[in-house]
Parts: sequence; structure tokens; C-alpha cells
Amino acid sequence: MENPASKARKQAAARLKSKKGTPDSRELVQQISRGDTPALARAITLVESTRPEDAALSGEIVDACLEKAGSSIRVGITGVPGVGKSTFIETLGLQLVGLGKKVAVLAVDPSSSLSRGSILGDKTRMQELGRSPGAFIRPSPAGDSLGGVARKTRETITLCEAAGFDVVLVETVGVGQSEIAVHGMVDFFLLLKIAGAGDELQGIKRGVMEMADAVVINKADGPNLPAARRAQSTFSQALHLFPPKENGWVPRVLLCSSTEGTGVREIWELIDSFATGARADGSFEMRRSAQNLHWLKQRLEHLLTSGFYQDPAMQKAYEEMKLRVTRQEISPFRAADELLSAYRGR
Amino acid sequence: MENPASKARKQAAARLKSKKGTPDSRELVQQISRGDTPALARAITLVESTRPEDAALSGEIVDACLEKAGSSIRVGITGVPGVGKSTFIETLGLQLVGLGKKVAVLAVDPSSSLSRGSILGDKTRMQELGRSPGAFIRPSPAGDSLGGVARKTRETITLCEAAGFDVVLVETVGVGQSEIAVHGMVDFFLLLKIAGAGDELQGIKRGVMEMADAVVINKADGPNLPAARRAQSTFSQALHLFPPKENGWVPRVLLCSSTEGTGVREIWELIDSFATGARADGSFEMRRSAQNLHWLKQRLEHLLTSGFYQDPAMQKAYEEMKLRVTRQEISPFRAADELLSAYRGR
Repeated sequence: MENPASKARKQAAARLKSKKGTPDSRELVQQISRGDTPALARAITLVESTRPEDAALSGEIVDACLEKAGSSIRVGITGVPGVGKSTFIETLGLQLVGLGKKVAVLAVDPSSSLSRGSILGDKTRMQELGRSPGAFIRPSPAGDSLGGVARKTRETITLCEAAGFDVVLVETVGVGQSEIAVHGMVDFFLLLKIAGAGDELQGIKRGVMEMADAVVINKADGPNLPAARRAQSTFSQALHLFPPKENGWVPRVLLCSSTEGTGVREIWELIDSFATGARADGSFEMRRSAQNLHWLKQRLEHLLTSGFYQDPAMQKAYEEMKLRVTRQEISPFRAADELLSAYRGR
Repeated sequence: MENPASKARKQAAARLKSKKGTPDSRELVQQISRGDTPALARAITLVESTRPEDAALSGEIVDACLEKAGSSIRVGITGVPGVGKSTFIETLGLQLVGLGKKVAVLAVDPSSSLSRGSILGDKTRMQELGRSPGAFIRPSPAGDSLGGVARKTRETITLCEAAGFDVVLVETVGVGQSEIAVHGMVDFFLLLKIAGAGDELQGIKRGVMEMADAVVINKADGPNLPAARRAQSTFSQALHLFPPKENGWVPRVLLCSSTEGTGVREIWELIDSFATGARADGSFEMRRSAQNLHWLKQRLEHLLTSGFYQDPAMQKAYEEMKLRVTRQEISPFRAADELLSAYRGR
């Protein structure tokens, strides 16, 4: 057993180090709510930290920021690589900054162009927006699972809102589960497409079309314009296949050229009118509430199952049981029952 | 403490009752493997039982039957109400019986036409097939959750296979999660449609089209025929939107009239050629294996989470935490962490 005097000394040293080394949560939250961007960046780093000793402090900060989160609008932006997401986000962001808005740009997905840009040191990506004092760009956090990345991005949104950002743009790449995750954390979900890519209806199949509050045909300029108009018509028809959204919103298909800057103003006006209407009829808060309860349930079930998956003895038993199921020696249901009994008996 | 003599008497009585009352699993399995239909029905009733004392015996029976399950083919059949599922299944079933095959008809979904028919005492449903000695019809089991119903149907398939049934037709209704459940327990998934219902492309949206190994346009007879041919063309094009299936199978769209009996033979030939090819290239067994591992994982995660949800104190804590999340007093992630700590500390 440890010597009590030595233990007390260690605790005192830890307290001292805590005062010197890690910022006090209350002070950090105050700095954030004053719009102090370096403080915001430090808090996000804490939220993104995987060190167990940072968990309590980052939890305190996020909860304190929840109360201060104001009247922002969160916009999810998805599209397959090559569709021009970065240029679109920069053009939209600069336009919003020009309207006097504070804009934060975040990303969900370790493979998103936002993080890839920063990993490759691509200084030209969103360079102009990055220099703007009204903008804050944060690459996708590192994470070993989409759930972890999504959690960090979701909490980072809260910090940005407490820091007074009016618009939070959340970028994701047009593949897999990351679109569902982003759809589950934003107020408005925008699908970016280009004409003539031959994937006009792929979005229906992937289920992303159904999630979209707007479809934007990007690169609608010069010789692309006629094809873009045809795509607009195709997508408008396709959107009518879906049942009306719960909040009564009818998704729109808009054209845009990020390079020429045309159509971007109309997109913001659409998002703004959506937000105004949804705030007025209460559907805005209802959607956010439903999203939060969904995250609660998902995180809870992750925690309830991860104890089993992280237990080395259970991992071994699970692998053995999979073999027995594959060899048809045991029904999958009975196999699960036996694994649970073994887990409970430990 | 209980009197040892009285305890011994009770145990002896229980053994005696067990011998008289509940069938011995080995004997029942032997009867099933001889194709004894009343024994099969008794075993299914055991599998469907919700009494805890039946669980061990039914588990033994299912595991013993797994070894005896032969070279059956499992066909899932879905379609919205009104599409003519019952008549189609009866026509297909009679045709198979005519080819000398033993056919079992099961259903997943408490609301399926199979169970509705039996609940309403609708004696005309599949009446002819029901009278055939080569056929076995079992309505959907009662269950308070789709998971429970799906488990029972999945295990009933095993019992039917051990009883020597060559074809197991699993009916489901064209709504919700039950189609995904049935797709996860069959070798071939068939989507039944009618022309001119105005829902031609709804199946894409719902994701069911992507699961289909064949689409059958039913009621393709008389004045409906031209519309059915147009629908065939539409669906053929729609199916090309999807990426090729892993096993290389290209879904087909066929026409059929259950009342005139036309096209049903071609449907069986298609299913049969699918099975022959899939058995030859190994994809048949691979799909079954993957399905079993999926059921194992799903059941395991259900068991790992249900302890929390069934605990009254945790139910209360969860409801309180939902309120706090809705009031933005706590982040959903931190709320989940706190619920887990409370659960672990009990």
C-alpha cells in the first residue's frame, strides 16, 4: 500500500500542475463566449483529446457551452469527390462573411477534403476564407471510428456556437455512413452534384437524396450550363418520388457556379428562409431535440456493448462462437445467449 | 431452507412430468427428420413459446436440426398489400408440389396476410395449397418485437429444413424493417409488384429494390398486360442504377398472372438456376454464413443492451436524462456516460 504522506504530496503536485498546465474550464468558457478564437481552438483540442484525464474537463466545457449556444444555423454539405466542395464552401463562406456573419467550417470524416487538404499542407484550399477574421476552419478530428469523429464534431459545433458563430458548415464526403452522421447533427442538409457525371440517380439509391433539404448542381457555367439545367429538371422530378418531409419543407434544386460566384446568394437565401420558417413553426427546435435524443441513445448503446467487445476473453469466445455458427454446430441465437451468459458470469 | 426430502420428491415429480408432458428432444428431432408434420408443428410451437422453461429444450431441438438441414432453398417474397401475395404464393407452391417438392410457407410480420388470414379465420386463403400433403403452412408467430418474430421464423426455417422441405417460402409485407429481416434469412429475395399502382419507383427509395434478386409484375393478364410490359421495362432500367451484386447475379424482371397461372414456371426456373449457379460458385453458402454471423451479432447486441432497458431504475434515469438533454442542460454524450456509470455502479 502507498505511503499516505507520499500520496498527499502527489495530490498536491497534481493540483498545482492542474492550475498551471490545464486551463480552468470556467475561464475557458468565458473566453470562448467572448469570441476568443485561440481559446476556442484550445477547447476543441481538449474535446478531441483521447487522454482519459481530459474527459472530465472537456465534458464540463461542452455542458457550459450548451447554455451559451445561440441562434446559429448548422448546414451539412455533402458530395462525392470532384464535385467542388472546397471551392463551394469557400465561396459560400466568403459571401456569409460579407453579410457580417461569423462562419465556422468543420468536417466529419477522416477522408474528407478538409482534413486531406491540411494533411497534405495544401495551402491553397479555402485560403481566402481562412484569412478572413470572421471565419474559423477546423479540419476533421482524427479518430479510430466514425462514431468518435462524429461525437467530436458534434461537440465542436456546440463550442463554435458558444463562441458566437452564426453559421456552422459541416463538410462530409459523399460515401458511407458519414453522411447519415452529418445529417443527424445539422439543421439543413445540402447535396452538391455536378451535371453529366452519370450518377444522376445514384443519390436515390444511397438514400442521400431523401435526406437532402436542397440539391445544388455545381459548376453550372459556360458550356456546362445546358447539361446543368437538364440535371436540375431530372433531380426536381426525382425529389417528387419521396413522401413530403415531416416539417412540410419541399426540397429545391438550385444551380450554382462556385468559380463565377453565381447562384450562391440564392442558396443562402433558401437556407435562411428555411431556418426562418422552421424557427417560426417550431420544427427547428424539434429536429434538434430529436437529434440530441438520437445521439444519447446511440452513445448509450455503444457504451453498453463496448464492454463486451473490448474484453479480450470475450473477443476470444466470440471468435470461437463465430466458427461454431459457421460450422452449423449451434444456432446464432443460442450462440448469442451463451456468449451473454459467459459475459455475465465473469 | 427447504426440506431435502421434500425437494427430492419435487424433483422426482418434475422428472416424471417431463417424461409424460414434454416430448424428449431427441425423439422429437428423430420424428421431424422422418418428415412427421405433427411433430414439426409441436417443435415450432416450442420454438415460438415465450415460457422460460421451454427455452432449453427448444434450443436443443434447433441445434440438433441444424445438422440435419439439407439442400433447401429459402425464398423471401415481399410486396405491398393488394399486390396478390397470397394467390401468388399458393400458385407457386402448388406448382412446386406438382414438381414433387415439399414446400413450407412461413411469414415474418405480425401484420402479414398469412397471419391476418388465419386470425380472421379466412379459410379461403391458400386453401388448396393447405390441403396438399407436400405443403406446410404456418402463420406468423405472435411476438412483441420484430426481432422476436424474426428469430422464431429463422429457427422455424431450420426445423422445416430438417423435416425435409425443399423450398421454404417466407412471406413478408412490403413495409418497414420486416423486409430487411426476411432478406437476411433467405437465399433469394423476390419483390412482387403490380403495374399502374403509381408506386413504380417507390421501391428504390425504400431500399427494397436493391435487395431484390427478382422483381415480378403480378396480375399481368387481360387488359393489364400492356401496362405490365411497360412496368417491366421501367423496372429493368431502374435495376441497372444499382451496382452489380457481390455474387455477380443480375436481377431480372418477370411478368406473371397468378390467376391464369402464366409466368410462374419461369419464375421457379429463374430461382432454380440462381440456386444452381450460387451453389456451384460457393456464393450460396457464403451468403448463408454471413447471414448467420449477422444474426449472432444482432442478437448479442440486443442482449447486451436489453439489461439496461429492462431495469426499472435505469428506465427512470433514462427518461430523466432525456429531459435534461432536451433542456440542453447536458450534452447527449456526457448524459450517456453518466447513465452507464449509474448502470455499472448498481
